[in-house]
Amino acid sequence: MKKSKPWSTRFAKPPNEKLAQFNASVHFDKRLAEFDVAASVAHAQMLGARGIIPAKDAANIQRGLKDILKEIRNGAFHWQTEYEDVHFNIERRLIEKIGGAGKRLHTARSRNDQTAAALRLFLRAQTDHILDLIADARLALLELAEKHANTLAAGMTHMQTAQPVVFGHHLLAYDDMLQRDAGRFADCRKRLNLSPLGAGALAGVGFPIDRRRVAKTLGFDGLCQNSIDAVSDRDFAVEFAAAAALMTAHLSRFCEEIIVWCSQPFGCVSLDDSFCTGSSIMPQKKNPDAAELVRAKTGRTAGALTSLLMMIKGQPLAYNKDNQEDKEAVFDSADTAQNCLVIFAGMVRAMRVNTARMRELLDSGYPTATELADYLTAKGAAFKDAHAAVGALVRALSDSGKRLEDITLEELRRYAPQADKGALLALRPENAVRIRNHTGGTAPKEVRRQIARRKAALKKR
Amino acid sequence: MKKSKPWSTRFAKPPNEKLAQFNASVHFDKRLAEFDVAASVAHAQMLGARGIIPAKDAANIQRGLKDILKEIRNGAFHWQTEYEDVHFNIERRLIEKIGGAGKRLHTARSRNDQTAAALRLFLRAQTDHILDLIADARLALLELAEKHANTLAAGMTHMQTAQPVVFGHHLLAYDDMLQRDAGRFADCRKRLNLSPLGAGALAGVGFPIDRRRVAKTLGFDGLCQNSIDAVSDRDFAVEFAAAAALMTAHLSRFCEEIIVWCSQPFGCVSLDDSFCTGSSIMPQKKNPDAAELVRAKTGRTAGALTSLLMMIKGQPLAYNKDNQEDKEAVFDSADTAQNCLVIFAGMVRAMRVNTARMRELLDSGYPTATELADYLTAKGAAFKDAHAAVGALVRALSDSGKRLEDITLEELRRYAPQADKGALLALRPENAVRIRNHTGGTAPKEVRRQIARRKAALKKR
Amino acid sequence: MKKSKPWSTRFAKPPNEKLAQFNASVHFDKRLAEFDVAASVAHAQMLGARGIIPAKDAANIQRGLKDILKEIRNGAFHWQTEYEDVHFNIERRLIEKIGGAGKRLHTARSRNDQTAAALRLFLRAQTDHILDLIADARLALLELAEKHANTLAAGMTHMQTAQPVVFGHHLLAYDDMLQRDAGRFADCRKRLNLSPLGAGALAGVGFPIDRRRVAKTLGFDGLCQNSIDAVSDRDFAVEFAAAAALMTAHLSRFCEEIIVWCSQPFGCVSLDDSFCTGSSIMPQKKNPDAAELVRAKTGRTAGALTSLLMMIKGQPLAYNKDNQEDKEAVFDSADTAQNCLVIFAGMVRAMRVNTARMRELLDSGYPTATELADYLTAKGAAFKDAHAAVGALVRALSDSGKRLEDITLEELRRYAPQADKGALLALRPENAVRIRNHTGGTAPKEVRRQIARRKAALKKR
Amino acid sequence: MKKSKPWSTRFAKPPNEKLAQFNASVHFDKRLAEFDVAASVAHAQMLGARGIIPAKDAANIQRGLKDILKEIRNGAFHWQTEYEDVHFNIERRLIEKIGGAGKRLHTARSRNDQTAAALRLFLRAQTDHILDLIADARLALLELAEKHANTLAAGMTHMQTAQPVVFGHHLLAYDDMLQRDAGRFADCRKRLNLSPLGAGALAGVGFPIDRRRVAKTLGFDGLCQNSIDAVSDRDFAVEFAAAAALMTAHLSRFCEEIIVWCSQPFGCVSLDDSFCTGSSIMPQKKNPDAAELVRAKTGRTAGALTSLLMMIKGQPLAYNKDNQEDKEAVFDSADTAQNCLVIFAGMVRAMRVNTARMRELLDSGYPTATELADYLTAKGAAFKDAHAAVGALVRALSDSGKRLEDITLEELRRYAPQADKGALLALRPENAVRIRNHTGGTAPKEVRRQIARRKAALKKR
Repeated sequence: MKKSKPWSTRFAKPPNEKLAQFNASVHFDKRLAEFDVAASVAHAQMLGARGIIPAKDAANIQRGLKDILKEIRNGAFHWQTEYEDVHFNIERRLIEKIGGAGKRLHTARSRNDQTAAALRLFLRAQTDHILDLIADARLALLELAEKHANTLAAGMTHMQTAQPVVFGHHLLAYDDMLQRDAGRFADCRKRLNLSPLGAGALAGVGFPIDRRRVAKTLGFDGLCQNSIDAVSDRDFAVEFAAAAALMTAHLSRFCEEIIVWCSQPFGCVSLDDSFCTGSSIMPQKKNPDAAELVRAKTGRTAGALTSLLMMIKGQPLAYNKDNQEDKEAVFDSADTAQNCLVIFAGMVRAMRVNTARMRELLDSGYPTATELADYLTAKGAAFKDAHAAVGALVRALSDSGKRLEDITLEELRRYAPQADKGALLALRPENAVRIRNHTGGTAPKEVRRQIARRKAALKKR
Repeated sequence: MKKSKPWSTRFAKPPNEKLAQFNASVHFDKRLAEFDVAASVAHAQMLGARGIIPAKDAANIQRGLKDILKEIRNGAFHWQTEYEDVHFNIERRLIEKIGGAGKRLHTARSRNDQTAAALRLFLRAQTDHILDLIADARLALLELAEKHANTLAAGMTHMQTAQPVVFGHHLLAYDDMLQRDAGRFADCRKRLNLSPLGAGALAGVGFPIDRRRVAKTLGFDGLCQNSIDAVSDRDFAVEFAAAAALMTAHLSRFCEEIIVWCSQPFGCVSLDDSFCTGSSIMPQKKNPDAAELVRAKTGRTAGALTSLLMMIKGQPLAYNKDNQEDKEAVFDSADTAQNCLVIFAGMVRAMRVNTARMRELLDSGYPTATELADYLTAKGAAFKDAHAAVGALVRALSDSGKRLEDITLEELRRYAPQADKGALLALRPENAVRIRNHTGGTAPKEVRRQIARRKAALKKR
Repeated sequence: MKKSKPWSTRFAKPPNEKLAQFNASVHFDKRLAEFDVAASVAHAQMLGARGIIPAKDAANIQRGLKDILKEIRNGAFHWQTEYEDVHFNIERRLIEKIGGAGKRLHTARSRNDQTAAALRLFLRAQTDHILDLIADARLALLELAEKHANTLAAGMTHMQTAQPVVFGHHLLAYDDMLQRDAGRFADCRKRLNLSPLGAGALAGVGFPIDRRRVAKTLGFDGLCQNSIDAVSDRDFAVEFAAAAALMTAHLSRFCEEIIVWCSQPFGCVSLDDSFCTGSSIMPQKKNPDAAELVRAKTGRTAGALTSLLMMIKGQPLAYNKDNQEDKEAVFDSADTAQNCLVIFAGMVRAMRVNTARMRELLDSGYPTATELADYLTAKGAAFKDAHAAVGALVRALSDSGKRLEDITLEELRRYAPQADKGALLALRPENAVRIRNHTGGTAPKEVRRQIARRKAALKKR
Repeated sequence: MKKSKPWSTRFAKPPNEKLAQFNASVHFDKRLAEFDVAASVAHAQMLGARGIIPAKDAANIQRGLKDILKEIRNGAFHWQTEYEDVHFNIERRLIEKIGGAGKRLHTARSRNDQTAAALRLFLRAQTDHILDLIADARLALLELAEKHANTLAAGMTHMQTAQPVVFGHHLLAYDDMLQRDAGRFADCRKRLNLSPLGAGALAGVGFPIDRRRVAKTLGFDGLCQNSIDAVSDRDFAVEFAAAAALMTAHLSRFCEEIIVWCSQPFGCVSLDDSFCTGSSIMPQKKNPDAAELVRAKTGRTAGALTSLLMMIKGQPLAYNKDNQEDKEAVFDSADTAQNCLVIFAGMVRAMRVNTARMRELLDSGYPTATELADYLTAKGAAFKDAHAAVGALVRALSDSGKRLEDITLEELRRYAPQADKGALLALRPENAVRIRNHTGGTAPKEVRRQIARRKAALKKR
């Protein structure tokens, strides 16, 4: 039989061809190449330093790996399905290049700890990039919020006009979400950035290795503590996928709003032409395709999360081949998260706000009814009674097609005898936002304070 | 601005580059090319026949499309992200090749109905292929079952020895599952194989088209009845993904069993070397990797299903760009389903059954305790009482490390005074399977009857 | 030890108390009581008829079970966690009531086939009820559609004005979805309505039973063919949950639209007060809570589907206790599906359509731009060229804030020199819908034809 | 109309009865009662202290709420669907008890911030309880691990014998998982334990409230910063559900192992009778039901996670009724997590390990083949060459049914000429584990060190 596999001598027959294809992962895991090489270099250094392999061999291996990395980067490396995965492909090439020394690299390690290490390093890099992109998206939000710290808009609940807010305040809600997303990715990173190297196949290795040295070389914060767990743990992939799913869910909320705001009946926001696309049949169309795609991507990241949890469910220890299914799912999560953040920040920056239309929309829907109830409460009514009185008033106005601002004091007093001129003032949206000046309230002053604080924190990052 | 898009005149600016990439789908939807060309040919024929476009143009379009299909098949076609998707890429090339006539192809249709048609045709082909693969996997099962229609094995519940069965009977359980899977794919095909063409963007089209003619040319069974639904419906993708998820879940059950059976303590089955792989570190290993991968793939198909359901959730009518997310999910479902079936059939055929070890395993665990209770029941005891008596007996035997077959009539009578010699015969596994000769029972005779009936039905397919 | 369990004699100790609680299912599976009793009655009849138990005992059992059913129905039955599940609770009560004969009921069956039978019968009833509710919801849609077969509205894609449609046509899209949902539930019913009874624990039973008789008594269409599959199959629950998930996803789409349509900026639909709720703080609010809840319920049904698939994944044959987890998931799916359908039909009937506002919304967004391009195409232009010309025109109008209907023939000719008076007529929405008179088009005539056909089919149900 | 709702005056009609039922949540959210009362007490104190309501009224409210809490605790409280949810039920009862003052409680708050606060307080308590249960489960693991720090067992990968480990080391892998789970719940708690009170309906409130005071009274670590986010954020529920799903997935892995280990062919572990259940038909059965149920529960928690993510997807700001769907999902996650942990700890404590059988199983499968390859490597061979030589040796032994321990030095030298007597010593499992004495290795000494360190850390908790 052709001796292509590192484990061929044990077998009477080569793998069935279809199985070989089904089993191979190099077409997707070659993406880990940079990280696999880095880990191999660190491993070889340690093997040499500890005298587990000759120093000269260790040096040759490192040199060989650096050359291979160049080949990979410039596209000259020839990936072959026959050699299963990224790890065997690189090892085989190493032996081809430097001969016997190359055969010593796999001393004191297994593909099980090797692949876990490469995936962890990859996801650490992805996490760091996502953290940067979140910071940039937040900046885009904060800048827009600053521009609209005074822009009156209809705050909605149940997609019904609820109370006046400033638009900048609305945007800050998304900043809160993204801040939490960053927190989750950072927490995930803590559990992710530990070295599984030294776990071997599952039991640790029988050579006098130095796990800490390897971990330090690779920038890991510490060691996976149990070798069986080290090779079978994919929690970090699940946790990463969960963070990505929730983050894209947040973006889907904003995109839903953009889509609605861009519709003709709302019309309070428009996207720059450069962020829209047209129709093959309807010449007039300008569609917020990007927002729709981002909205749908929550399905994608949630699907990846489902996949990973199901992959883990019921898996006995230690390493099983099931774990090979981790990669495509988490690669897709990582790509989707990053693409969505980039597009999101772009859309926020490409958004044009029609402030006049926002104000216009605010006026429908009795947005200051609560103010009136509050006013009566401040005048001594129990809130429940004040609420009931204003509810009856609104119903009467609604039946006659009138707005709150149109009523006279007399009419008002029919429902709330204790009302005075101040009540009419209370109905002004400007007033409603101004008085919500506590932490987290929609008062322009508080909104500006929040923006300043956040921008300062982002700068310090 | 560069006029690359069919809708460019409406816009002041070209798309943002990142958006263009995010938005493009040609890198995955080019897979629909064959089906898109077929649908365009049928559409052009109809346009010509109805006089909506000149007959000469219709002929030219068809000729051009055939040439393009050749280019695609031999890899000469130059796919460009700039032209968004498979549809624009082909249309653009058509205009390049045949000039003005090519600009008439998109008369009386929209990308919305066009893309729905191509996806339906693609999934119909996938469904048909899956139905063939299921039939083949069933054949593999039936052949193995036939070989083992007399092989005694431990039927297990809760992974505890339960009752004797013949191994062929066990295999038939999977045949039942696959039969249902085929039923579900066939039912899905009914709802899938309807033509959306003629729905236009969403409202139907204003030309005197002939929807039935186009549908017939393409082998559709009928028409989508409402044009708004026709362009926004992705139920067929969800239903396909659900059928694929459940089918892979079935395969995961069998694979779980193979993995356990191949373990050293069970050892009642082994996979051919050609269906195993080795370890980079442990020279002795022969791992059932394929079975493990198939087991994990349920996560993948279930993830795709989650993605699609979430994509649909809350989507207003009619077409939204969200639907572009349907393709990668359903492509992956289709590929996974097919790969798993191929590997599954291969594994079944590569399975070697250690019948002696199966018989050995049967003997542990008091597999015929039920027979004894049934025997006492037949002798007049109430089943509940007989069950209690045998339970007490087993507990005593278990404490002293004895097996059921080892007891004497005397010992037996201590627990069940009414027992006679027949009771001892009832304890023989051969007897236990023989008497379960009703429909669906494990009697070798019934098992052979089932196999014959199923093989005959498969032949008639 | 206290002999509460039917299997107590085998054990040295009673179950740990926490385990007993964890293990018990009676608090939810008592919902299956009616069906468990029906199946036991059918089983007892067959046992008697076949002489497996004395005829007198069979009669007593049936009488006892009927009494128990009365106790259950009038709330007098005392369910006890100690007796694990619905099956043991009823059996224990039977023995309490009729003594020794009751101990014979469990002859030739196991809880494994018993519980599968009860669940199948339950889901068959649920399916039938859902099919009725779907029919009713469709009727509500068709009646509203009939009322609005001429009501012009803005057909939207990407939530942008696309083309004129009649509102009745829009509603028919949902009718198509519900029709497919009904098809899926009906297909599921075929695979669901088969009798597992006779499968015993897993291997069939050793008594001369008559499976067909029992199946017929219970209204099953046929038999589960393989006994191992019969006790471990939960496909019908997964398929039911999948049908429910997709159906609720459809309802979520409609609810999303209702929510948007009820918003102040759209304002083209309002729900009756009886289908809205208010706010504890904002006196003016009238919220479409029901629509929002239904929208969210897709998560619930999709979650149940995920649960069931994950439960099955990797489960070895035959019955495992994992399957007990099927019930709460599928109960919730069934309840959610039914509640959502009832609320949906109610909402549709409680919807008031503001036709004037619908017409008003139609006018924004250049809805007949396609008509113009089509008109030019009919006059001989290639569609792509016509599309480009109209695109440029719309861009110019948009920049100057004009509507399509406002242009003069002269202005039009600047972009499309071949345009004549007919072009101006083509811009009228009434015309645009009238000419889409093919199958599935939005022409009022076709819409009425569709409604009539569907109503007739529903009547024949 | 009957004025049962706090918002009735706005409406011409009462809610449709079916809608009222669909909409009501009191049947499940009454579970939040303790936390709702606590939050109301803190709110009333602040209102009084700030002079927003009279001090006397504030005092009355607090007294009234305390009485109500007593009624709730002793089951005397009469929950009514008519009053929608836990909040209205309590408020209505308060007004009933103390009259007018009760109507002032809802000043400066909304159900939107109220319900978010109650849910956060509830989940904080659940989280704290889960953290305690994790600690207890870990203790159970560590105690068992300590007992088996020297017990040799077959470490498996791909469910094939891989390398010798000590059983205590295997158990520590689960301790690592649970430790990470605790970390995730603790991280979730940080983001959970912030006060939304003061956010009002969405915009903040127009009274001079003191958000910090209320937060402090309730033990919150800080404030939700943006009021719109505060009422619409359900991230904490998603994150909690994700932590629960992953944790149950870990438990499912252990349960899978228990189930396999308890099977007759493995037989290396048995559960105490008090943790098993029997069969209604097979008198001999002793089934690990609890382990199977826990295994299946991953589906349940993953389903809840899917539900919550789907609920959030595409939801516009601010509060929508969709969020009411959060509770049942997260309640079920919390209950499932806790039940599974309790059962898990119980099972670990009820596990009897058959150390002799473990040792026996270790001997099959050439567990020390790696040791031989390593030995040859240490003697100067390249690892790849040593691996190949041992692979060929194992294949030959396997064909002739021999074990590694059986070979003579002569036979060995046929495959590895450089082998000496030391090679035979290397084949002893005791040696293989002893030399893996680095951090995380399976050496008994290292295992004991890990246990000691962990127990000490748990004690300090």
